[in-house]
Amino acid sequence: MAEASITLRVRYAETDRMGVAYYGNYFTWFEVGRVELLRQLGFRYRDMEEQENSYIVVAEARCHYRRPARFDDLLRIVTRVVESRSRSIRFAYEIYNEETGELLATGETTHVICDANGRPRVLPEKYRKYFPLTNTSAPDARR
Amino acid sequence: MAEASITLRVRYAETDRMGVAYYGNYFTWFEVGRVELLRQLGFRYRDMEEQENSYIVVAEARCHYRRPARFDDLLRIVTRVVESRSRSIRFAYEIYNEETGELLATGETTHVICDANGRPRVLPEKYRKYFPLTNTSAPDARR
Amino acid sequence: MAEASITLRVRYAETDRMGVAYYGNYFTWFEVGRVELLRQLGFRYRDMEEQENSYIVVAEARCHYRRPARFDDLLRIVTRVVESRSRSIRFAYEIYNEETGELLATGETTHVICDANGRPRVLPEKYRKYFPLTNTSAPDARR
Amino acid sequence: MAEASITLRVRYAETDRMGVAYYGNYFTWFEVGRVELLRQLGFRYRDMEEQENSYIVVAEARCHYRRPARFDDLLRIVTRVVESRSRSIRFAYEIYNEETGELLATGETTHVICDANGRPRVLPEKYRKYFPLTNTSAPDARR
Repeated sequence: MAEASITLRVRYAETDRMGVAYYGNYFTWFEVGRVELLRQLGFRYRDMEEQENSYIVVAEARCHYRRPARFDDLLRIVTRVVESRSRSIRFAYEIYNEETGELLATGETTHVICDANGRPRVLPEKYRKYFPLTNTSAPDARR
Repeated sequence: MAEASITLRVRYAETDRMGVAYYGNYFTWFEVGRVELLRQLGFRYRDMEEQENSYIVVAEARCHYRRPARFDDLLRIVTRVVESRSRSIRFAYEIYNEETGELLATGETTHVICDANGRPRVLPEKYRKYFPLTNTSAPDARR
Repeated sequence: MAEASITLRVRYAETDRMGVAYYGNYFTWFEVGRVELLRQLGFRYRDMEEQENSYIVVAEARCHYRRPARFDDLLRIVTRVVESRSRSIRFAYEIYNEETGELLATGETTHVICDANGRPRVLPEKYRKYFPLTNTSAPDARR
Repeated sequence: MAEASITLRVRYAETDRMGVAYYGNYFTWFEVGRVELLRQLGFRYRDMEEQENSYIVVAEARCHYRRPARFDDLLRIVTRVVESRSRSIRFAYEIYNEETGELLATGETTHVICDANGRPRVLPEKYRKYFPLTNTSAPDARR
């Protein structure tokens, strides 16, 4: 399965009065990982929106927080495609402290392909090669 | 079970280039609902942190997105305590478009009680009345 | 000059590890004040974008921070139009702690009217009544 | 004068419904540039807070927006110390589109040194070498 890895530093803006990164910001980091995975797969997500009228719209998101991330920590975001169907894609994430190697958080997001008006559509032909179908038990007609 | 409701408007800052509210912001709205629920239960969460050295630290969060929220939409955040144990609390959320009544999103967050150093602790005595134990099948010794 | 006032509570998400509201968030609060001022003037900014292809695009922003805002503080945002020309509008802001009355911050933003492609344009006819020209010394032809 | 440069990509979370980066986020990018400048000067700002009880607290911030930044644009943040006194530091910023070389925004922030309780103090001895005084006309006693 496709996998990509990218590092980023925790910004002061991302911390809260508890002295750690605010829980909602992990979903932004997931986005950073996801966009990077698509880039490493071979395309720019921005082009998919602008040229193909196709948006990867989030339907579900979850995060399991294990240890806090702190200001200026260097984090590693590992992103994988864990399920790919004609109309939906599921990504999984792991966030590590790059210096200590500790696993800080894991998460998943599920997305549906939509047009600019939010109507579900199938993934455009030209992007299918990047997302081989994972659903072997239940046949998926891609339509 | 305790329940509270509060309204807020989607800010321009909370939208993204898809023209809808960015998915990570729903977790901020959950926080707004949670803090308001505690206030309606009878205490200010800020005091719990400052006077009792007790922090409600998030361990898990999830959101299921049904319909988009748009700039300037008036949203209603409904928050409930769905599980309360000696060391953890679970909240559930529903987000509605206040004008149309549509359910836009549902979610849950699970929290553990910690001190300022992030060590788990039991909920302080004075706050227990606000969180009656929900775990009737498995006895919980509150210690 | 037009003036509007609105209250909001500082969110946990808006605080940082210094224990106070992060400086960038004041500009979001300015936006909340600005949108409310337009509403009180008589129109919804969202409609101006969607129906008139007119965007109030920021050209300059500044904030002077006097005292910190803290989590769960109730703030009052006071917004005024301080200059109104055919192609630009300038707003001024004051942020108060609603409970203590203390002035926490002041600021200003200058905006130009643009179409969806970012090209400057004059304010549409139907909105001019909300923004009487303030530039009396230098004649402004509104064209 | 000290100067540092760092690149970052515009996140989806940072865009708004106008399709460009939200104006408040430029101040977060300024922070990223500032923290990087301190790192290149020779210290980690986090250590200054944690070991010296010294916080670089913002007193004023401004930004002049020239051209929009868009999702996935690679930006270069150039940060300089433009004034350094015993109790205050002023930074200037330039934000460029790294691919086109266009200048997108310029800004400034002024900061005062404070302790954890927000009381102004002089910059600790050990950090003075990083910030040579710039105020030659008006003698500054560093006390």
